[in-house]
Amino acid sequence: MLPTPEPERQDATWLAGAEVAIVGLGLMGGSLAGALRGAGAAPRACRRVVGIVRRAETVAAAGPWVDTATADLAAVGTADVVILAVPPRTILQLLPIVAAQMRPGALLTDLGSTKSAIVEVMSSSPAGLLLAGGHPMCGKEAGGLAAADPQLYRGAPYLICPVPSRPAAAVAHTAALARALGAQPRVLDPATHDQLVAAISHVPYTGAVALVLAAAQLDAPTGGAIWELVAGGFRDTTRVAAGELDMWIDILLTNRAEVLAHLQRLTGVLTTLATALAAEDTAALGAALGAAQERRRRLFRA
Amino acid sequence: MLPTPEPERQDATWLAGAEVAIVGLGLMGGSLAGALRGAGAAPRACRRVVGIVRRAETVAAAGPWVDTATADLAAVGTADVVILAVPPRTILQLLPIVAAQMRPGALLTDLGSTKSAIVEVMSSSPAGLLLAGGHPMCGKEAGGLAAADPQLYRGAPYLICPVPSRPAAAVAHTAALARALGAQPRVLDPATHDQLVAAISHVPYTGAVALVLAAAQLDAPTGGAIWELVAGGFRDTTRVAAGELDMWIDILLTNRAEVLAHLQRLTGVLTTLATALAAEDTAALGAALGAAQERRRRLFRA
Repeated sequence: MLPTPEPERQDATWLAGAEVAIVGLGLMGGSLAGALRGAGAAPRACRRVVGIVRRAETVAAAGPWVDTATADLAAVGTADVVILAVPPRTILQLLPIVAAQMRPGALLTDLGSTKSAIVEVMSSSPAGLLLAGGHPMCGKEAGGLAAADPQLYRGAPYLICPVPSRPAAAVAHTAALARALGAQPRVLDPATHDQLVAAISHVPYTGAVALVLAAAQLDAPTGGAIWELVAGGFRDTTRVAAGELDMWIDILLTNRAEVLAHLQRLTGVLTTLATALAAEDTAALGAALGAAQERRRRLFRA
Repeated sequence: MLPTPEPERQDATWLAGAEVAIVGLGLMGGSLAGALRGAGAAPRACRRVVGIVRRAETVAAAGPWVDTATADLAAVGTADVVILAVPPRTILQLLPIVAAQMRPGALLTDLGSTKSAIVEVMSSSPAGLLLAGGHPMCGKEAGGLAAADPQLYRGAPYLICPVPSRPAAAVAHTAALARALGAQPRVLDPATHDQLVAAISHVPYTGAVALVLAAAQLDAPTGGAIWELVAGGFRDTTRVAAGELDMWIDILLTNRAEVLAHLQRLTGVLTTLATALAAEDTAALGAALGAAQERRRRLFRA
């Protein structure tokens, strides 16, 4: 089991009094803002939510989701918590700029889907800042503030990567934030994180893209007939291929080594399956398909 | 567009007076039986539904789904329609045995997920029988009569493969059967069928199996931590891997050439994606991911 930080009363108290600045109000940032301000039976979790968006035109659209919206990044200067809710390569660019403007003792964290590169940049932030990498394992294909939902985080694993030689309060505070969203905080190191999410998320996405593109090779030869046959199986196996492009390009590029390593594992298994099928080796085929079936049924009990 | 047979009054009339024997009462056969006997607002579609099961012990369980249940295959002798609702390799074994016992003018069809091998065996059935291959594109992971649902076929494409040099009434009658289930009949030849379902269903299944087995390689090294991270994306991309083993082994073995050909297309695309990622070729990567996103969003509008 991955360790879960013990909930401490002082972390919840700290959050209740905090001004939280969220940089980026897309699906993840907008949903986070809505959850912190309270939704349904859940009470407001912090003192103030400030949304920081890139363009002045989008400040108005952000209105209903935050206490204050601004296009001025300098607003991070008064925050007790700053959460970077932008794609991973933008996080890497913004980290030094934002860290330089924050007040000592404040917490800087992020929602990026890859962690090694981000935590490495975090490591060179000014002393006195609290720092922790974050990755809530939730989302959906539709992106943008229009798709935001304060319930999005509920029940999701919220992975937290400590930044070496930074105060442990950073992890405890980030865990309090995760709990306020209804998510389940779990702590692990960035290298393990990136290896595991490559297998659980990034390579499954790449596989879904490949399934769509391979099927598309039969589009012209069949006069489009192939798309009339798509059923529930294809819908589910390829759903993630519809996800936000900017985010996925950033994810693959910032987790390149682990994605490539796991793609090798995947093509290795595909080759093994193809070899068994070509040889009509029913025993080997049945053993492999049976192991996958058993594991999948045990994972989700459905 | 794949052709749809015109609905003819005489086909519906024929079905209304028919005794339908279903060989195999699992998920597909049981759901079919329930739909033919009428469910919800839908009226009964045929005169009599006979369920033929393998074991005498399961005759009782079949009771609520059919008008008569029996373990005696000779019951096909009085039927106007016989539907083989068993896995593909069992269909291949049963076809000559069942065909030899049927009365002239009756319709013999099946629900198998692969069609070339089955239609070839159908071709050597006794003259005077109506024959057509069938493949309703629906299902779910839970198998067996316990999971049966008379609504299962509603809205699904129901693919029909003509058997060369057999009367066209076989296709028209099978289309009437599909319509009685609420499905959408579409006609195509067995070779095209097998090529397309390899791309839309069989290789996506194989890919889901490979994703589960590749992730499982990280089980021991991470002390099982990998399974704590699984989120909605992994759940959906691997759902089909939980499907019924006997059916999937039969599907892959009876569509071997097309599955192997499409696995080559898939690994070709995966290699292209890996090459672009390894080279940090953002333009090539973005073009491929963007094409898949656009196609997927257009297909399902969600």
